[in-house]
Amino acid sequence: MKRPGVWNMLMAAVCVALLSGLQAQDHPGQVSIILLGATGDLARKYLWQGLFHLYLEEVGKGHHFRFHGTALTSTEQGQEAIAKVLESLSCPGDMASGHCAELKAQFQQLSEYRRLKTPEDYLALSKDIEAQVEHEGLRETGRIFYLSVPPFAYVDIARNINSSCRPGPSAWLRVVLEKPFGHDLHSAQQLAAELGSFFREEEMYRVDHYLGKQVVAQILPFRDQNRAALDGLWNRHHVERVEIVMKETLDAEGRTSFYEEYGVIRDVLQNHLTEVLTLVAMELPVNTSSPEAVLQHKLQAFQALRGLQRHSAVLGQYQAYSGQVRRELQKPDNFHSLTPTFAGILVHIDNLRWEGVPFILMSGKALDERVSYVRILFKNQAFCVQSEKHWVAAQSRCLPRQIIFYIGHGELDSPAVLVSRNLFRPTLPSASWKEVEGQPGLRLFGLPLSDYYAYSPVREQDAYSLLISHIFHCRKDSFVTTENLLASWVFWTPLLDSLAHEVPRFYPGGAENGQLLDFEFSGSHLSFSQLLPEQLVPGPDSAPLPSDFQVLTAKYRDSPLISAWPEELIARLAGDIEAAAVRAVRRFGEFHLALSGGSSPVALFQQLAAGHYSFPWAHTHLWLVDERCVPLWDPESNFQGLQTHLLQHVRVPHYNVHPMPVHRRQRLCAEEDQGAQAYAEEISALVTNGSFDLVLLGMGTDGHTASLFPQSPAGLDGEQLVVLTTSPSSPHQRMSLSLPLINRARKVAVLVMGRMKREIAMLVSRVGHEPKKWPISGVLPDSGQLVWYMDYDAFLG
Amino acid sequence: MKRPGVWNMLMAAVCVALLSGLQAQDHPGQVSIILLGATGDLARKYLWQGLFHLYLEEVGKGHHFRFHGTALTSTEQGQEAIAKVLESLSCPGDMASGHCAELKAQFQQLSEYRRLKTPEDYLALSKDIEAQVEHEGLRETGRIFYLSVPPFAYVDIARNINSSCRPGPSAWLRVVLEKPFGHDLHSAQQLAAELGSFFREEEMYRVDHYLGKQVVAQILPFRDQNRAALDGLWNRHHVERVEIVMKETLDAEGRTSFYEEYGVIRDVLQNHLTEVLTLVAMELPVNTSSPEAVLQHKLQAFQALRGLQRHSAVLGQYQAYSGQVRRELQKPDNFHSLTPTFAGILVHIDNLRWEGVPFILMSGKALDERVSYVRILFKNQAFCVQSEKHWVAAQSRCLPRQIIFYIGHGELDSPAVLVSRNLFRPTLPSASWKEVEGQPGLRLFGLPLSDYYAYSPVREQDAYSLLISHIFHCRKDSFVTTENLLASWVFWTPLLDSLAHEVPRFYPGGAENGQLLDFEFSGSHLSFSQLLPEQLVPGPDSAPLPSDFQVLTAKYRDSPLISAWPEELIARLAGDIEAAAVRAVRRFGEFHLALSGGSSPVALFQQLAAGHYSFPWAHTHLWLVDERCVPLWDPESNFQGLQTHLLQHVRVPHYNVHPMPVHRRQRLCAEEDQGAQAYAEEISALVTNGSFDLVLLGMGTDGHTASLFPQSPAGLDGEQLVVLTTSPSSPHQRMSLSLPLINRARKVAVLVMGRMKREIAMLVSRVGHEPKKWPISGVLPDSGQLVWYMDYDAFLG
Repeated sequence: MKRPGVWNMLMAAVCVALLSGLQAQDHPGQVSIILLGATGDLARKYLWQGLFHLYLEEVGKGHHFRFHGTALTSTEQGQEAIAKVLESLSCPGDMASGHCAELKAQFQQLSEYRRLKTPEDYLALSKDIEAQVEHEGLRETGRIFYLSVPPFAYVDIARNINSSCRPGPSAWLRVVLEKPFGHDLHSAQQLAAELGSFFREEEMYRVDHYLGKQVVAQILPFRDQNRAALDGLWNRHHVERVEIVMKETLDAEGRTSFYEEYGVIRDVLQNHLTEVLTLVAMELPVNTSSPEAVLQHKLQAFQALRGLQRHSAVLGQYQAYSGQVRRELQKPDNFHSLTPTFAGILVHIDNLRWEGVPFILMSGKALDERVSYVRILFKNQAFCVQSEKHWVAAQSRCLPRQIIFYIGHGELDSPAVLVSRNLFRPTLPSASWKEVEGQPGLRLFGLPLSDYYAYSPVREQDAYSLLISHIFHCRKDSFVTTENLLASWVFWTPLLDSLAHEVPRFYPGGAENGQLLDFEFSGSHLSFSQLLPEQLVPGPDSAPLPSDFQVLTAKYRDSPLISAWPEELIARLAGDIEAAAVRAVRRFGEFHLALSGGSSPVALFQQLAAGHYSFPWAHTHLWLVDERCVPLWDPESNFQGLQTHLLQHVRVPHYNVHPMPVHRRQRLCAEEDQGAQAYAEEISALVTNGSFDLVLLGMGTDGHTASLFPQSPAGLDGEQLVVLTTSPSSPHQRMSLSLPLINRARKVAVLVMGRMKREIAMLVSRVGHEPKKWPISGVLPDSGQLVWYMDYDAFLG
Repeated sequence: MKRPGVWNMLMAAVCVALLSGLQAQDHPGQVSIILLGATGDLARKYLWQGLFHLYLEEVGKGHHFRFHGTALTSTEQGQEAIAKVLESLSCPGDMASGHCAELKAQFQQLSEYRRLKTPEDYLALSKDIEAQVEHEGLRETGRIFYLSVPPFAYVDIARNINSSCRPGPSAWLRVVLEKPFGHDLHSAQQLAAELGSFFREEEMYRVDHYLGKQVVAQILPFRDQNRAALDGLWNRHHVERVEIVMKETLDAEGRTSFYEEYGVIRDVLQNHLTEVLTLVAMELPVNTSSPEAVLQHKLQAFQALRGLQRHSAVLGQYQAYSGQVRRELQKPDNFHSLTPTFAGILVHIDNLRWEGVPFILMSGKALDERVSYVRILFKNQAFCVQSEKHWVAAQSRCLPRQIIFYIGHGELDSPAVLVSRNLFRPTLPSASWKEVEGQPGLRLFGLPLSDYYAYSPVREQDAYSLLISHIFHCRKDSFVTTENLLASWVFWTPLLDSLAHEVPRFYPGGAENGQLLDFEFSGSHLSFSQLLPEQLVPGPDSAPLPSDFQVLTAKYRDSPLISAWPEELIARLAGDIEAAAVRAVRRFGEFHLALSGGSSPVALFQQLAAGHYSFPWAHTHLWLVDERCVPLWDPESNFQGLQTHLLQHVRVPHYNVHPMPVHRRQRLCAEEDQGAQAYAEEISALVTNGSFDLVLLGMGTDGHTASLFPQSPAGLDGEQLVVLTTSPSSPHQRMSLSLPLINRARKVAVLVMGRMKREIAMLVSRVGHEPKKWPISGVLPDSGQLVWYMDYDAFLG
């Protein structure tokens, strides 16, 4: 949060400089624009046209321009290529052709090609600019370097610009960068650090061309201009879901060397769709025309994103893809790519505005249509008393109500903003947006087009023209700042890592995909709606499914053993705990449950939080079996895990929750603060005979349980109910229920999961009662019941 | 929870007796059925037919029957009337007419009319039954008294049955009662107590004929037989909403003397729709054929219903109603009825299964169609990747998915159970339910009929036949037990009370209603979707609306005063608190807020919980200004109010919540437990300089604030931060922040609301610094800011 402050000030200074340049009419300023990679695809298709567009817009306002197209090829070749491009430039449709020709000739005059390769080349360019400015009696306002080059070239170019081609101190420098900006968090950080050593943050303009699309650029102004109508609607109480979608019909043929490296998530979701997501989700600044405020709010939106996990995504790959990769990259016949060409992602935003609202991001190649849109679907909170045949689309609040930012293509085939007529009549700037003519019979998102207020741009403008104009006008909020970029990678990298070895679902491509790629969510889990009809490419050794096995009931250390695959084991344990709770509440009016921390219980907590409707939470007391001596808000704290995965989702009264007092008088587990004694007193006061109804334990690979360790005798016997102990692993200090107290419980459940536990599970199955060596062997309830819950990995290896 | 246990046992005994009666073939049993009001409308239309139906079903199974139609009229008149009814009885369509005639003749033989008026008449009836049973060498199995009489006659009849017409000890007695069962909780309790003095619970069968409708009676069996499919769906994660609807086209003409007394809520919602609601919402017992289990689970469903409030309802009245009342009840010309003929109600169920799912109950007269249904609409949690024109109704999970219990009429014109084909294929008993033939073009609930699996009864059966059979078979779960009845009145009576003087919205009736009655919910508030176009009948003096006034800013006791109507005042205060929180978190990383209890803050808590998306709850510490010395779970506890209205709805970390330790060592505010000292230490440890960022106070009519009272000097000055005090009103013992501690705060907000506060507000405006007389006058922050928030009632009177 500190950096923006600094560069905001700098940026403001820079933009003031620009304005003062405009006013110094007595000594007019010149802007030099250097387009690197000037003969490349992007430059030929969009960038020269964008520069020409800028020229047309600004030349009348007292600016002087020079355009330098550069590349690595020889001067002749370059000149020839550039000449061809300049010849093909077009003016807006409403400009008289004579005037157009005149301006085009001027522009051609101001544009040159030059080779830019060595440091000397850069120095020469700088000298030439200075000389030319002086020669013409101008003042240099600034230089824009537009790097339309592959990313590996960035660092060299940046070094050369910085060392040899900076303008003088009174003029500004802007460097425009094209994606990709790294491949994951690490590489993005590296690249950012390198660039940061040459340029200040306010000098860098990272392009995400989606931000230049007219409809995307309209999202914030639309939210701003329709505040009155949207204020009450733009939140979890009214929004049913948000869909951010980019569907392509093309596949990756011809581009597999790039695509194989990136895949759909890095290519589309990490940048384009994420940028759009933040524009929809961010808190709206009071002043949306302040780039600093917009960028700061955008960053805050990133901070509220809930971390993605493996189950947040579904992946697909069109069937022809691996063949294309084999052909284009000369891979062997048995090569199968795992690169996804389709992804559906479920994003949740953990703030009060959006909590619980699903944001669905979806993109893919070889789909049935080419279309991009953001759809905000509102909840139906109305009940229409008349029979549905009397409903009137423009009025009935029982028909779907939605706002769609239609970015492009699809059946509408033009960018548009659509608002259901039963929602409100939106305000759009009438100079630049016009109502769409009805196309009879066209239906969009379940409704005929006539059911929407629909607006399209008066003049369609390509994204690069808009962005080049925004670079010139210092509109940094149309670009990706370093913080923004890294925040996005922080968000996406863990998912990318966890999906690295995932086999995508294969799809035929186009309309034939049918419902194969449809997906759905349950809580925060995403999955394909259809079971896979057949495995088109053999995946890695297909393991038996949980359903292939029954829950196994047997004995372990003379006590009942329940063994199953993890999912079923957890479901069984959760069911058993609920049954115990219901029984206890029926008999005693309350249920005292002592829980261990660690990773295995997390799945249990989630299961309890999600699926147990009859659990008597209001009458349940939650106790901790053990705790690490860290503040309760430390991520390492057992209590923190309990809070995140269970407490926040169920309604246990505040006073029924009993964290261990490991943090008293601002100290951690100091003997003299008597935390252990205080917890023991609390237990004695509330739990009859100190007999918990259920104690959940784990087992460490060293045979420890609770925080009772072989190396530290505290708590293994004696009178104390709660003890301070020392763990061999950090954080070393612990608080724990003692073995005698645990053994007073009515029921003790020991949960043991994972292959790592196999050895100790085998060992402990054979040892006798040796708590000093293996504390777990001392768990033997005086009169209660002991049950072992082990997954097959731990039990069978 | 104790009563059911008792009568379950009794009931079980009774039903065993019935069964043993069936088996004692050597000594066959006789059942006497006495229909009181045998010449009335209901009897003629349904009950005799129902009795005949019972006879047809059971006569072959070894039972002997006698039917006694009774009324108050003379024997001849009665006999004549009954003869006519008996002549018109019909057999099922598939019975041969000869056989029918034979059985009908038998039934007529077994049926007689007799006058039943005086105790002697009852005694005579009893003797006659005994004599006749003995004469025929039978054993008496039981007697059914079906009271088809107005409720005012119940008690006399009950007394007579009990004193003069009970069967002998080896036979059972069943008394069937028809609604209304009271007019509100009080009258229902009274009636229940009276009946309870004559009959045991298991002897009473209260009829709600809705429970005899085939589709309603199928709800639980359907849930049971489709457990596998429904188990995962029947909960808040998957259900979007539930609609329970009974629409009528008829109006109340000719019945206004009844209707004027009852209105739509008592006539339809309190009984029929509530019964259906519980069948949908209740936890499904393992054994749904156990009446005890069903009844018990139903009661539990009642317990989970969230209390209704004024804003849970919208009311309407068809325009012709008041005129009809004037005509039929001879009211003066200026009489306007407030009785609602239309109601929409929003019900929430506060358990983990249903929390947050809106249950919409709606019924009305003079609507556009006659139809009754329960609609369970499921959430759309799918994303369909293909363009919508490719969606296939039977498969696409993006099209609506719903289950409809179509109780009757409407466009389908027959009872039916409908399940969307994209949901699952339901199981229904094939002997009694058949698939509905397609009616081309028919659309129901947004989908063509062909998109549903649709089942209708093979044979339509009227509700009374089914219920009479259930009475005979002891199926108590088809009837309304006393507990069930009272639970329903407990639920409805507060709403009825709060609506007593509400002016309903007037509607023209029929299709002309248009969208006038459409309503919608926001949170738990319900309101009509359309603003009222014009006031058809002048309401009570229309007060100025809050929006007619501006928030007033002025001075009070030399500090800023903010004054407004309550709603706006609370909104402003909540906004100010949020602003303070954001500021504090930005500067210090945390926000320490001390809150008072009582009723005014509840609205504030709700406002904060519902609408403040940017509130930094994760960094907020909540403290109590004062507390009553009661356990924290006592409804009187300030903390309990905070928990219910705020904590449960926002995510404040557990360890940031600081209830006052009024309950230590199982004692309340014992000096020696040092609770006040402990709280002071906690404050000192966590709140820098003991300066809360914001303290919210109230002001009592005696000038007290926090729990600092004029009569008790503790806490008004001195060093103590937290003190024990004594309140003049119960509970007397209190714990409170001291005045010196309060005055250390950065900001103190005093919230004063309501006409009751007017006098003290006026007085306090004039007094100086006299905390011993008026503790509130001692509130003067050392260096912080004091702001008064008063509503117009308190400020202007």
